[in-house]
Amino acid sequence: MISKAKIKHLKALQVKKYRKQEQCFVVEGTKSVLELMQADYEVTWLAGTEHFLEQNAKAINNFKGAVVEATMQELAAGGSFKTNDGALAEARMKPNMAFTLDYNEIALVLDDIRDPGNLGTIIRTADWYGVKHIIASEETADFYNPKVLSATMGSFCRVMVYYTDLDAYLHAVRKPMYGTFLDGMDVHQLNFKEGGLIVIGNESNGISKTVEKLITQKITIPRYGDAESLNAAIATGVILDRVMQSKK
Amino acid sequence: MISKAKIKHLKALQVKKYRKQEQCFVVEGTKSVLELMQADYEVTWLAGTEHFLEQNAKAINNFKGAVVEATMQELAAGGSFKTNDGALAEARMKPNMAFTLDYNEIALVLDDIRDPGNLGTIIRTADWYGVKHIIASEETADFYNPKVLSATMGSFCRVMVYYTDLDAYLHAVRKPMYGTFLDGMDVHQLNFKEGGLIVIGNESNGISKTVEKLITQKITIPRYGDAESLNAAIATGVILDRVMQSKK
Repeated sequence: MISKAKIKHLKALQVKKYRKQEQCFVVEGTKSVLELMQADYEVTWLAGTEHFLEQNAKAINNFKGAVVEATMQELAAGGSFKTNDGALAEARMKPNMAFTLDYNEIALVLDDIRDPGNLGTIIRTADWYGVKHIIASEETADFYNPKVLSATMGSFCRVMVYYTDLDAYLHAVRKPMYGTFLDGMDVHQLNFKEGGLIVIGNESNGISKTVEKLITQKITIPRYGDAESLNAAIATGVILDRVMQSKK
Repeated sequence: MISKAKIKHLKALQVKKYRKQEQCFVVEGTKSVLELMQADYEVTWLAGTEHFLEQNAKAINNFKGAVVEATMQELAAGGSFKTNDGALAEARMKPNMAFTLDYNEIALVLDDIRDPGNLGTIIRTADWYGVKHIIASEETADFYNPKVLSATMGSFCRVMVYYTDLDAYLHAVRKPMYGTFLDGMDVHQLNFKEGGLIVIGNESNGISKTVEKLITQKITIPRYGDAESLNAAIATGVILDRVMQSKK
């Protein structure tokens, strides 16, 4: 059973301010919880249905934190979604630290991706294409937001996001910087063998003026129909597919 | 001012059953409402802020339905989203009718896309790539769901979705049928000059067994990392980008 005090604590962790203060976050659902347990996060507390705990007895036995058996209803009550398919966990946040990029590595830069679903889908897509590092503006949705974690489908365990002042960060980087604009070069004509940073702009406003100045190559996804723009996560997928093709 | 009775009616239209009964739906937000007014929908009622009505005086003058001036709060109260940026409209649904596909046309087939955001994003992406027709299983999210319409960013005015029994429909079609599987042919190796149907599977279960039997060419988006799968809308974007490239 999950105590009322614990549920209150878990609920509070849905708010960014409280997560920051406690340096903890909550992961919901069996798939995400199982991925979390195999990753290099410090998991402090775990709740699961009788079925989940039985099915994953080996992993649970090796687990050092507290384990609680709970009903689906209790798990849902402790989470942010209406339903829960069998597991809930609490883990410690990782420090927000810059990473070193390999010389021909492709990394993503997110210039104010505000929608948690978009950010989660971008992280999942990055993971599919082997992108390990994302640099995000401070206004980008929070990595530990439950909607973000859920949309990553477990990929939050394999892709790192570093939040920083983008202008300052990008000013210091000496790498090719690609950004999508309506008047850029056809993304199919380029090769990305040298690696570099792919900048994805805000859902409504695109890439900001200050970041635009630092772009070394404007790129465009060709349009064949009438939509004004592509969703930011779709653009990320199309570009990464092209990038990885050209790097082969 | 929007009357209480009207707000009650608009709210009821958030439910599929009531939409079906009334054959009406609601469009929220200035961009979507303006696209709706230019499209071939019969718009029966329109509400906008003083600013919206002034800014679009010409379109409003030509408009034959009822026009109401309303505050942002009233517009939000009549809609399904927390906020509204200035306009709300009610229009008549179009009949659910099969369409004739051109001989080398590319159309999408949705085999149970359940998430309204995914469906909306798929419609928007189809519109970007010039795809006009989508055939959807009866279990696919409803086209007129407010979340679907919103995620299309106005593209619901240019892309048609026909809901039908997929097995029966696909059995009768004599066209190449492509579907994404883990063991298919690399999508980059194919050309789609003959047109055909691109089948996108359900978010959790992929393409159903009965539809799988009708696929003439299994295709795969190459994976470079560790995510188990791509989001259905992302896969649609990547495939359509490749398809349109190869048709050039």
